[in-house]
Amino acid sequence: MKKGRLIGVGLGPGDPELLTVKAVETIRSSPVIAFFAKAGRRGNARQIADRWIPRECIELPLYYPMTTESRFDGPVYVEALRAFYEGATAALAGHLDDGRDVALLAEGDPLFYGSFMHLYMRLRERFATAIVPGVTGMSGCWGAAGAPIAWGDDVMTVLPGTLPEDELVARLANTHAAVVLKLGSNFAKARAAIVKAGLGERAIYVERGTMDGESVMRLADKRDDSAPYFSLILIPGEGRRP
Amino acid sequence: MKKGRLIGVGLGPGDPELLTVKAVETIRSSPVIAFFAKAGRRGNARQIADRWIPRECIELPLYYPMTTESRFDGPVYVEALRAFYEGATAALAGHLDDGRDVALLAEGDPLFYGSFMHLYMRLRERFATAIVPGVTGMSGCWGAAGAPIAWGDDVMTVLPGTLPEDELVARLANTHAAVVLKLGSNFAKARAAIVKAGLGERAIYVERGTMDGESVMRLADKRDDSAPYFSLILIPGEGRRP
Repeated sequence: MKKGRLIGVGLGPGDPELLTVKAVETIRSSPVIAFFAKAGRRGNARQIADRWIPRECIELPLYYPMTTESRFDGPVYVEALRAFYEGATAALAGHLDDGRDVALLAEGDPLFYGSFMHLYMRLRERFATAIVPGVTGMSGCWGAAGAPIAWGDDVMTVLPGTLPEDELVARLANTHAAVVLKLGSNFAKARAAIVKAGLGERAIYVERGTMDGESVMRLADKRDDSAPYFSLILIPGEGRRP
Repeated sequence: MKKGRLIGVGLGPGDPELLTVKAVETIRSSPVIAFFAKAGRRGNARQIADRWIPRECIELPLYYPMTTESRFDGPVYVEALRAFYEGATAALAGHLDDGRDVALLAEGDPLFYGSFMHLYMRLRERFATAIVPGVTGMSGCWGAAGAPIAWGDDVMTVLPGTLPEDELVARLANTHAAVVLKLGSNFAKARAAIVKAGLGERAIYVERGTMDGESVMRLADKRDDSAPYFSLILIPGEGRRP
């Protein structure tokens, strides 16, 4: 029997109209729709894709493990995550072995810091795969801010907020444009690094870009240190402009 | 009379199915469709959007100036480009003043190294504007390569191939993941820099990603130094993978 195909479907930054035509067609034609979610939640990916998911498909939610450990790189959490990815891989493989295509939803772009990649690397040797690229969350955010991010010969650096403050400062001081992702509990550190790098006045904070509750402000105007999952900081470049 | 609105419409990496739903709707509903093209050509943007452009719209091609000067940063070319942007701005403003919305097509994402930005900055104070973000060319290329580009805490750096070789080497040696854009006549220099940075074996060359004639190969397997407009080099990151 012909095996199914694994398709990584980029959902874009959050606005359901920012799925690509190909993503919508893939979702509409796939017998199995898989997506990651926190335990007990519907999940952001499922929410973004909601209007495009047909009633008759098989939905396969993949629930992240809950641990009491707070450190994302601690051994207990890493082991729980590894076991979770192994289990999710087996669940997807079951459908693929039975000949059903599986569309695995991915917020933003599937191959840019996505959980999708962990299953993709485990399944790509055994099954046919395809990628439907998506609009990244950062594109959605600089679009929401109306902030051209990189010009001419600008170097643009994407920095996870999880990096140590000193490293953030050094890298921010050595680039023309930057995007700082993964804020959450790293927000205060990221802001301090941006200010130390002399970029406090240029930085823009974007929360829930392209979604309900979207908020855009100068970083200098942000009064608190709270930053939800869907947030990032932009340092627009200032390169060549004829 | 109510003035028109300028809308920057990201077209994605080249596959016409990789426009977003919002981009398609914007193109279908805009009375004026503007796009950049080389003189005498139809233009890549016009080509990508072709199936979505309604017959009854006003098409406004904006033809780049031709100069005999080969240096993109030489004073003659910069001046010609400046005059071109001023003229294009006036052409768009004419429609906007008359109350017609203008959709200005942009390959990839409108605010990521796009010509769109030069008109946007000249018009945004005078007219209402909106941005429809798009899938970047680089997302299309790493999707075509099936190459996850950034994991976990990876730093990703976007490098124009126009930079000096020494600078490319230094920046490549100081990042986890990289994308080298703007190859063209810079290809041999970019390859030399990647090899000097010790990344020759990891690098992937992608030409016409998501388009007819798509080609993906290890950079080490590329025999010549020719690289067309739609090409780039990927250095995938190797970060945290539970």
